[in-house]
Amino acid sequence: SLQSVIAEWEELETEFKELEENHKNYVSKVDEVKNLQAKCVNGIAHQRYRMKQVADNLKKYGKSNDQEIASLYQTIEERKTQFREFEDVLPHKNGIYLSIVLGQVNVSLLSKKDKYLYKQDYEKFKLIVSTISMVLAFCLLFFISSRYLDAAYHFLLVWYYCTLTIRESILIVNGSRIKGWWVAHHFVSTVCTGVLLIWPDGVTYRLFRQQFMIFSVYLSFVQVLQFYYQSGCLYRLRALGERHNMDITVEGFQSWMWKGLSFILPFLFGGYIFQFYNAYTLYHLAFHPQSELQVPVVCFMFFVLASGNAWTTLLVIREKLKS
Amino acid sequence: SLQSVIAEWEELETEFKELEENHKNYVSKVDEVKNLQAKCVNGIAHQRYRMKQVADNLKKYGKSNDQEIASLYQTIEERKTQFREFEDVLPHKNGIYLSIVLGQVNVSLLSKKDKYLYKQDYEKFKLIVSTISMVLAFCLLFFISSRYLDAAYHFLLVWYYCTLTIRESILIVNGSRIKGWWVAHHFVSTVCTGVLLIWPDGVTYRLFRQQFMIFSVYLSFVQVLQFYYQSGCLYRLRALGERHNMDITVEGFQSWMWKGLSFILPFLFGGYIFQFYNAYTLYHLAFHPQSELQVPVVCFMFFVLASGNAWTTLLVIREKLKS
Ligand SMILES: CC(C)(COP(=O)(O)OP(=O)(O)OC[C@H]1O[C@@H](n2cnc3c(N)ncnc32)[C@H](O)[C@@H]1OP(=O)(O)O)[C@@H](O)C(=O)NCCC(=O)NCCS
Ligand SMILES: CC(C)(COP(=O)(O)OP(=O)(O)OC[C@H]1O[C@@H](n2cnc3c(N)ncnc32)[C@H](O)[C@@H]1OP(=O)(O)O)[C@@H](O)C(=O)NCCC(=O)NCCS
Repeated sequence: SLQSVIAEWEELETEFKELEENHKNYVSKVDEVKNLQAKCVNGIAHQRYRMKQVADNLKKYGKSNDQEIASLYQTIEERKTQFREFEDVLPHKNGIYLSIVLGQVNVSLLSKKDKYLYKQDYEKFKLIVSTISMVLAFCLLFFISSRYLDAAYHFLLVWYYCTLTIRESILIVNGSRIKGWWVAHHFVSTVCTGVLLIWPDGVTYRLFRQQFMIFSVYLSFVQVLQFYYQSGCLYRLRALGERHNMDITVEGFQSWMWKGLSFILPFLFGGYIFQFYNAYTLYHLAFHPQSELQVPVVCFMFFVLASGNAWTTLLVIREKLKS
Repeated sequence: SLQSVIAEWEELETEFKELEENHKNYVSKVDEVKNLQAKCVNGIAHQRYRMKQVADNLKKYGKSNDQEIASLYQTIEERKTQFREFEDVLPHKNGIYLSIVLGQVNVSLLSKKDKYLYKQDYEKFKLIVSTISMVLAFCLLFFISSRYLDAAYHFLLVWYYCTLTIRESILIVNGSRIKGWWVAHHFVSTVCTGVLLIWPDGVTYRLFRQQFMIFSVYLSFVQVLQFYYQSGCLYRLRALGERHNMDITVEGFQSWMWKGLSFILPFLFGGYIFQFYNAYTLYHLAFHPQSELQVPVVCFMFFVLASGNAWTTLLVIREKLKS
C-alpha cells in the first residue's frame, strides 16, 4: 500500500544520510591523500638531491677505510632502496609515449595486488592474441590465399604490437624492469608489419608469402610457450612476495626459472635464426627485377629484430648467470 | 670538512624521519580512501535499486494529483542528479574498448580541474595533429607525388584516429557526453584510412588521389576551426562552473555558443558535402575496368561518414534549439 511505500522511502532516506556523510568524508580524505602524496614525492626528491651532495662531499673528504664513513655509505644505499619502495605506492609521471597517446591521465597502480593483476592480464592478452594469430596464419598458409585477408591479418598484427607498446609503457610506469629493447622491439615490429601491410601483391610478395606465414605460426607458438614461462615466473614471484607463504623459497624459484629457461631458450633462438633467415631471403629478393621498395625495408627490419633479440637475450642470460 | 658533512647527514636524518611518518600516514589514508570509495559506490548502487522499486510502487498505488506524491517524485529526481554528482569524483570502470587496449588500469580523473586539463590537452592534441596533417596534405598535393609518402601520410591518419578513439573513451569514462556517433566516426575513419593505406598504386588510386588530398587539407582546416569553438566552449563552461566567477552568465555562454556555431556550421556542412562528393566520385570509379576492391569499400565508408555526420549534427542543433 501507499503507506508502506512511504515507510520504505523514509528508511531509504536515513540510509542516504549515511551515504552523504561517507561521500563528504571521502572527498575530504581524497584531498588529504593528494596533499600527503605531494609531500612524499617532494620529500623524496629533496632527500635524493641532498643525499647526492653528502655522498659527493664524503668522496672529497673521507678516507674509504674509515669505519664510520663505510657505515654511512651503507646507510645511503639502504635509503635508496627505501625510496624505491616508497615510490612503489606513489603515482608516477607518464613517459613521453603515453603522454602523447593517452594524455596526462594517471595510470599508476598503487598496490602490489593491482600490479600483479595488471601484469597477469597483460600476459593473458598476449596469449589470446597469439593463439588467434597462430590459427589465422595457419589458415592463410594452407587454406586461403587472398591478398585482402593477408592485409587483414597484417592489420591485426599492427594493432597488436601497437597495443603492446601502450601496455608495456604502463607496466614500466609502474616499475616493471622490462628491458628497453623489448619495447623497442614492438615498435619496430609495428612498423615492420605496417610495411608488410602496404606491400603490393606482386611477384616478390608471393615469393615471400609462404615463408612469412610459416614464420608467423612458429612465432605465435613460441609466444604461447613464453606465456607459460612468464606467468609461471609471475605466480611464483608473487608467492615469494607474500610473507606468510612457506611453499616457495628463493632457491625454489631460481631452480624453476632455470628449468623453464632451458626449455624455452632453444625455441627462442630458433625464432631468431628464422628471423635472420627471413632477412637473408629478402636480401636475395631485393635483387629481383620486379622488386619493390618494401623488400629491402622489411629485410632490414628482420635483421634488426633478429640481432636485437639475440643480443638482448644473451645479455639477460649472462645477467642471470652472474647473480 | 668531514665534520660538516656528518652534521648535514644528521639534519637529513631528521627530515627523513618526517618523510617516513608522512609516507606511513599516506599508505593508511590510501586504504581508508579505498574503503570509503567502495562504500560510496555500493551505497549508490543500492540506493538506485531501491529507489527504482519505490518509484514502481508509487506508480502502482499513488494517484498523480496527490501533493505528497508529487513532491516525492521530485525528490527522487533530485536524488538522481545528486548521485550523478557523487559519481563525478568516484572512479569508473573502463568500457570494453579500453579494457582491451589498456587493460584494467584506472583512468579516472577525480577532480574537476583534472578533467578540465585533460579535455584541454585532448583539444590541443587534435589541433597539433590537424595542423601537421594540413601541411603534409598540402605538400603532397602540390609538391611531392610518391605513393610511399602517401602511405606514410595515411599511416599518420590511422594512428591519429586510433589515438582519438582511446582518448575519447577515457573522456567518456570520465563523464563527457560526447555523442556515440563521434566515437564511431573515428573508428570508421580508422578503417577508412587503413583501406586507403593498402590501396595499390594503380589507375584508380591516381584518379582519386588529388581529390583526396584537397579534401584532407579542407578537413584539417575545419578541425582547426573546431578547435577554437571547442576550446572556447570549454573555457567558458569552466568559468561558469567556478562559483565566484561573475564574468560570465548562462546567457552569455549561450549567445557565445550560437555565435560560434553559426560561424562553424557552414564549414562543417561543406565538409559533409565534400564527403558525399568523394563517395560519388568513388562510386563512378568503381565501374572503371581497372578498379580494385578498395574503391567500393572507401566509397561506402565516405557515404557512411557523410550521412552519420550530417544526421548527428542536425540532431545536436535541434537539441540545442529546444533547450
Ligand atoms: C629471455 C626471457 C625468457 C627472460 O625472461 P625473464 O626471466 O622474465 O627476464 P628478466 O628477469 O630480464 O625480466 C625482467 C622484467 O621484464 C619482463 N620481460 C622479460 N622479457 C619480456 C618480453 N619479451 N616482453 C615483455 N616483458 C618481458 C619480465 O616479465 C620482468 O617483468 P617485471 O619486472 O615486471 O617482473 C624473456 O626476456 C623472453 O621471453 N625473451 C624473448 C622475447 C622474444 O624474443 N620474442 C620474439 C622473438 S621469438
Ligand atoms: C556540432 C558541434 C560543433 C557541436 O559541438 P558541442 O556544442 O560541443 O556539442 P554538444 O553540446 O553535443 O557536446 C557534448 C559533448 O561532446 C563533445 N563533442 C561534441 N562534438 C564532438 C566531436 N566532434 N568530437 C569530440 N567531442 C565532441 C563536447 O566537447 C561535449 O563534451 P563534454 O560533455 O565533455 O563537455 C560538434 O559536435 C562538432 O564539431 N561536430 C562536427 C564534427 C565533424 O563533423 N567532424 C568531421 C567532419 S568535417
